[in-house]
Amino acid sequence: MSLKTVSRVINDEPAVQEQTRERVLQAVADLGYQPDASARSLRSAQSYAIGVVYDNPNPYYIIGIQHGVLGACRARGYGLQIHPCDSSSPTLAQELIELVAHSRLAGLVLAPPMSERAELLAALTSAGVRFVRIISAADDPKDGTDCVFLDDRDAAYDITEHLVQLGHQRIGFLWGGKSHRSSWERYRGYESALHDYGIALDESLIVEGDYSFDDGFRGARKLLALAQRPSAIFGSNDEIAAGVLAAAKSSGMHVPFDLSIAGFEDSPFSKQSWPPLTTAKQATEDMARHAAELLIAQLRREGRGEGGAGLANRGFSPELVVRGSTAPMKPAAG
Amino acid sequence: MSLKTVSRVINDEPAVQEQTRERVLQAVADLGYQPDASARSLRSAQSYAIGVVYDNPNPYYIIGIQHGVLGACRARGYGLQIHPCDSSSPTLAQELIELVAHSRLAGLVLAPPMSERAELLAALTSAGVRFVRIISAADDPKDGTDCVFLDDRDAAYDITEHLVQLGHQRIGFLWGGKSHRSSWERYRGYESALHDYGIALDESLIVEGDYSFDDGFRGARKLLALAQRPSAIFGSNDEIAAGVLAAAKSSGMHVPFDLSIAGFEDSPFSKQSWPPLTTAKQATEDMARHAAELLIAQLRREGRGEGGAGLANRGFSPELVVRGSTAPMKPAAG
Repeated sequence: MSLKTVSRVINDEPAVQEQTRERVLQAVADLGYQPDASARSLRSAQSYAIGVVYDNPNPYYIIGIQHGVLGACRARGYGLQIHPCDSSSPTLAQELIELVAHSRLAGLVLAPPMSERAELLAALTSAGVRFVRIISAADDPKDGTDCVFLDDRDAAYDITEHLVQLGHQRIGFLWGGKSHRSSWERYRGYESALHDYGIALDESLIVEGDYSFDDGFRGARKLLALAQRPSAIFGSNDEIAAGVLAAAKSSGMHVPFDLSIAGFEDSPFSKQSWPPLTTAKQATEDMARHAAELLIAQLRREGRGEGGAGLANRGFSPELVVRGSTAPMKPAAG
Repeated sequence: MSLKTVSRVINDEPAVQEQTRERVLQAVADLGYQPDASARSLRSAQSYAIGVVYDNPNPYYIIGIQHGVLGACRARGYGLQIHPCDSSSPTLAQELIELVAHSRLAGLVLAPPMSERAELLAALTSAGVRFVRIISAADDPKDGTDCVFLDDRDAAYDITEHLVQLGHQRIGFLWGGKSHRSSWERYRGYESALHDYGIALDESLIVEGDYSFDDGFRGARKLLALAQRPSAIFGSNDEIAAGVLAAAKSSGMHVPFDLSIAGFEDSPFSKQSWPPLTTAKQATEDMARHAAELLIAQLRREGRGEGGAGLANRGFSPELVVRGSTAPMKPAAG
């Protein structure tokens, strides 16, 4: 018999055989056991922190996610462990399961792209790990998991439409990391807006990369070196757009008159750059807070042994924010 | 007798009376106790996370601190809880003591300004909280606490000297938060370099503020509105310098030809802005990693019941990094 079994009996938990229970209670009575608050809190301390798991090169996004989750944690007395990870690691599921066991985490908030990997989610579920997901989707997937979902496609459509309505026809697109569903959704929004306005897709204007400044810089250099260069570039997040801005300025271009630039996220950088960036306001912190609230509600329901529905999943729609980095197409240029 | 006492005996910890020990061992033998790995890990789980405490508006600095501490934590099997706080809160000591107790943290890494408050450190020490400090100082304070120290004054001297050697005489200075000792040290470095080069201190060129973009923007607008405006501005960190850059550009000025700008930190922004910023390379991540290593070494020494010296405290000297935001004084201007 283990100390754990003794602990289970003392704390009146289920899953102990009646015979064992009686032996323990008798032995404990013989020892003169008295309830001990700190021993109890030691046991329950295992569930007083939650973890947030992300893999993103963007410091503003990471801070937004952390602050949102922390807001919910503090309101409910939870601590927050951070776990940046390598989403391409083949042993990620094992790593997260061990993290939860080792650090006694009550559950995890999963940011993309971890939140969008069916096999990872299945492994966590079968290991009994509680989690909530932040995902890119237009609608609630209604797959039985708790999540918040962000309509990236619709917002990317709005940004592209804004550029088209300014007169731009040659609009470059710089991808975020293809492991993120948000990158695909943003690309589809771009593609769909061009289609609706009768502009043919030009593969030479589309460059792959990650959600990083460096890839924005590199991608923009490539596009600006084209014989027929774009008059506008849509970077899949504000970090990419910051790279585009630096590339344009280092080529002596005047933004927005020589080149319009749009990002996505509404990060602090987008307001601080000169000119400030046209972008889509993503409400990262609100999303993360609601995700953590979903997780905590799930944990409390389980703590009380209740089933059924808890807090509702919630969708977020980023809104177009027009600033100084986009301007009407110059009449002369082509 | 409490479950905690039983646990102490089973795990062969000190501070249990011999008579009690014998009674417990007998009773446990009667129960057929076998060592249980998960019960053991549950007990020791209380010390498997450390906390990092900061109060800073700069996302790059925060991420640098987190990554450094995480690097050390992961190498030694610790989780990391984050605790951004309000350094001006009158109940901060109590908040941190409760955090450690509630989340069963093994110890804390204290960033400035919390690391520099004698009364806070005394309260933590008397509550038995283990901590290590990241502080601004030219030398090891040798006050018996584990710390890493950063020579802000010397680096600020180098930055100011660089501007003077470019021909600048009217050099504006934008303060960081006065609750941070680093702000004072940077100011003293500025003051000391001006003094050594025989340039009189002009109070109208010195503006107070926090380590933030907004205060950099506001401070620069104030300086640029002067009848005799400065030809160079030294912002106490890169966020402030970013604000100065935005203010200069929004006034139609050309950096560095109309205004030289220097920051402090070598944050990613300083390389990504256009022009990139002259700054001092601060090695935030290395500092934070060494701080966490000091803490973990301290915990291990205690765990083995050893006294005496552990890892040595370590100093860091930020180095001047000259980039495109500073240039020689224009011959005509004054």
